[in-house]
Amino acid sequence: MKAEIIAVGTELLLGQIVNTNARYLSQGLAALGIDVFFQTVVGDNTARIRQSIDTARSRADLLLFTGGLGPTMDDLTKDVLADYLGRGMVVHEPTLRTIEEMHLSRGSAMVESNRRMANLIEGSAPLENTVGSAVGCAILQDGTRYVLLPGPPMEMTAMFEGAATRWLMAELGEGEPLHSRILRFAGIGESRLEKELMDLIESQSDPTIAPYAKEGEVAIRLSSKSADEAAALERIENTAELIRARVGAHLYAEEDISLEEAVLRQLRVRRMRVSVAESCTGGLLAELITGVPGSSGEFLGGIVTYTNTMKNKLLGIPMEQLEGAGAPGAVSESTAALMARRIAETTGSDWGVSITGVAGPGTSEGKPVGLVHIGVARKGGEADVFTLNTGGSRDMIRIRAAKLALYRLWLKLADC
Amino acid sequence: MKAEIIAVGTELLLGQIVNTNARYLSQGLAALGIDVFFQTVVGDNTARIRQSIDTARSRADLLLFTGGLGPTMDDLTKDVLADYLGRGMVVHEPTLRTIEEMHLSRGSAMVESNRRMANLIEGSAPLENTVGSAVGCAILQDGTRYVLLPGPPMEMTAMFEGAATRWLMAELGEGEPLHSRILRFAGIGESRLEKELMDLIESQSDPTIAPYAKEGEVAIRLSSKSADEAAALERIENTAELIRARVGAHLYAEEDISLEEAVLRQLRVRRMRVSVAESCTGGLLAELITGVPGSSGEFLGGIVTYTNTMKNKLLGIPMEQLEGAGAPGAVSESTAALMARRIAETTGSDWGVSITGVAGPGTSEGKPVGLVHIGVARKGGEADVFTLNTGGSRDMIRIRAAKLALYRLWLKLADC
Repeated sequence: MKAEIIAVGTELLLGQIVNTNARYLSQGLAALGIDVFFQTVVGDNTARIRQSIDTARSRADLLLFTGGLGPTMDDLTKDVLADYLGRGMVVHEPTLRTIEEMHLSRGSAMVESNRRMANLIEGSAPLENTVGSAVGCAILQDGTRYVLLPGPPMEMTAMFEGAATRWLMAELGEGEPLHSRILRFAGIGESRLEKELMDLIESQSDPTIAPYAKEGEVAIRLSSKSADEAAALERIENTAELIRARVGAHLYAEEDISLEEAVLRQLRVRRMRVSVAESCTGGLLAELITGVPGSSGEFLGGIVTYTNTMKNKLLGIPMEQLEGAGAPGAVSESTAALMARRIAETTGSDWGVSITGVAGPGTSEGKPVGLVHIGVARKGGEADVFTLNTGGSRDMIRIRAAKLALYRLWLKLADC
Repeated sequence: MKAEIIAVGTELLLGQIVNTNARYLSQGLAALGIDVFFQTVVGDNTARIRQSIDTARSRADLLLFTGGLGPTMDDLTKDVLADYLGRGMVVHEPTLRTIEEMHLSRGSAMVESNRRMANLIEGSAPLENTVGSAVGCAILQDGTRYVLLPGPPMEMTAMFEGAATRWLMAELGEGEPLHSRILRFAGIGESRLEKELMDLIESQSDPTIAPYAKEGEVAIRLSSKSADEAAALERIENTAELIRARVGAHLYAEEDISLEEAVLRQLRVRRMRVSVAESCTGGLLAELITGVPGSSGEFLGGIVTYTNTMKNKLLGIPMEQLEGAGAPGAVSESTAALMARRIAETTGSDWGVSITGVAGPGTSEGKPVGLVHIGVARKGGEADVFTLNTGGSRDMIRIRAAKLALYRLWLKLADC
C-alpha cells in the first residue's frame, strides 16, 4: 500500500508551527509496513484541498489527512472530501451526545458550530477520538482509502494508535510489517562511510541499507519487510555483521541514541565521571553532554578558557607554555594534554577531556583554521592527544571537534 | 509570486527527522512577501522527484528545493532537475577549488563523489554555501523559478539568508524593488509580540509586517515594494516608529544580528569583557557567545558547574549556601547573585553573568521545572537577579534562559 500524508492548515504554510504530525505518521505507517511516498501540506482552502486530493489519488492508494476537523469555518477537510466523493454528511450520534454532555457538565452554551465535530462522511467508519471532540473518518472508495485524523498532536496520535490502526490493519489483511534497526557511527563522515559500504548498499535489497547524516554524526537504517519477524531480524543481523566487519570501530550504538548519550551510558556503567576544558568549542562540548537528561550523574563540570590568561588562571597552564619565543602555544598537542589533565585534577573527575584549536574565521598563532587538538586524560595518568584537520564553517569545525572528542572518550571507555 | 517548498529526502518520509526546513522557509518567504501554497516532501527517487516538479509547476511559479545536494548516490535533486529542464551540468570552479583545498589541508584523499557537490545546472546562478561544501543553484526557465538549497539546516539557512534571498529579491524587484528592514527582539515571546502589534499587523498593507520566530528570539520584517526607494523607506520608518513606541524596550537591533552579537558589540564599544557561570544551561550561554567570530576580544571564559561540589570548588560558593536545612539551595536568587559575582571576580571580567535553574525533566530541590534565576553583576558591585518561569521542553527552557541572560546583560550595557 502506498500512502500520502496530507496535513491541512494555513498555520503550517505560514511557518507558525512545524509539521511534527507528518513525522509521527511516517514512522507509524512504516511500522505497519506501509510505504509513504509523499507528504503534502495545504492551506485551509477548498480549491487547493481538492487539488491535493486529485494529485494524491494519482500516486497513492491511502490518503491520510491531519487537521481541519475542528468546529471553525476554517475547518474544511471533512466537507471538502465528502463533496469530492459525492457523499452527504451524517451525524455520528455517540459523538454528538458526548459533545452535548460536555457542554452540560461545564454549564456552557453549545454553539451550533460545535455540532460540526460530530459530522461523519456518509458511509465512512467513525474513528473514535479519545482525547478531544471531533470524530475521525475512514472510507474506501474506488480503490482509494481515506483516513481523516484531527490536527492537534495529542488527539491525532491517540486516534492513529487506536481506531485508525485497527481500521488499517483490517484493510491490510495479511500485510507485511516492516522491521528495522538503526546503526549509529562516529569518527567517520557520511561519504567515507558510504564508500566503505558502497557495494553492500548497491547490491542489497533486503534489508535495505539507508545512510543518513545526523548533526556531526552518521546513521544507517537497515529495514526488512516480512510477516516472518524472526527471518527478517536474521537478515538484518547478517547485514549488520557485514557492516560491523568493515566499520565496526566507528559503530557506537545499534539504537537511535546520540554519541553523548552513549558516552554517558558508558560512564554510568563504570561509575565514572567526566569534566571538560574547552577553548575553540566555547562550551559546545559541555552543552552537548548536559543536553542529555540526567547527565548530572556523570558530568561534573566544564571550564571554557577563551584566552591565554584564562587558561593560566582557571586551569593553571603555565604562561610559558602558551606564549613567548619557543612556546608550543595554546593550539598545541602539549597544551591539549595539559588542559585534559588539569581539568580532571581540578574537578576530581575520573576523566578529563580538552579541546583547543582554531575555529576561524582567522588563523591563530599562525596555525590554520580547522586544526584542533583533543586531549583525553584519565585521573592521575597521562593524556592521549588526537589531532583533527577539518574544513567547513566555524560552526562545522566546532561540532566536528566536539563530536570527535566524545568519540575518543567513548573509545577509551569501551577499552577500560 | 506563488511558492511551493519541496523537501527531498527519504529520511523525512521514514519519519527519521522533522521537516523544520519547511517551517523556516515558509517564514522566510512570507517575510519576503512571497505566498507559500503547498509544501511537499518526496523521497530520494528520480521518478517521484520529477513527478513533484510536474505537480508543483502546475500550481506555483517558484519551486524551492531543500536536500539532495550532497555527495552521495542518494543526492539526486540537481541531476533530476537538470535533466527535467533539458540542461547539462557544469562544474562551479570556485566550489571545486574550495573542496580540493579542504581535502589538501586535511591531508585526506578526495573521493570522486565529493566533486559532485561542485556541480551546477548549466545556466543557473550559483548560490554560495558559506557553511558546507555543496553549491546551490537558482534558475528561471519558462516562467518558473527554481532554487536549490542544501538539506542540513545550518547550510540551508545560511544560503537562504545570503545568496538565495539576494537572488529572489532581484527576481522580485523586476519593476518594483522590495525594500525591507529587520527588527530583532529579545525578552518577549512571539505570541506576546504579535498581540501587542495585532492591530498594526492586521491593518497595515504597506509596509507588510511579518513576525517570525528565530531560535529563542523573535524578529519582524517590514517590507515595502516600490520604485521610489525614499518613499518606501519613509513608510518603513514610520511603521518602525509605531512599533518602537509599543515594544521598544525589547528591540535590540534594527539589522539581522543575533542577540549575542548585539551584546558583544555593546561590550566592544565600552571596552568591557564578560565571563559566565552556568548550571542548568550547561555551557549553552558560553557556546552562543563564542559562536560569534571574534568573540575572544570580549569573552574571557566560562565555568559550567553541574553539581553543588563544583559550584563550591570552581566558584567558591559556600556549601552552606547550597545544601542543608534552611539553605537557599543551588536554584535560588542568592546563589545566582553569588555565582555572577564570583565569576566576574575569578576571571577579572567587567561583567559576570550566571544562570541556575531547573531544565527538567525532573524537579530539583523541590523546585519546579522551568524555574530559572539569572544573575548579572558588575565587577566589584552587587548582582541583579532576574527570574524566569517558563514551560516547554528541556531544550526550550535552556535556550530561553540563555537568551534572557543575554537580554538582561544587553539592557545593563545599554544603560551604562
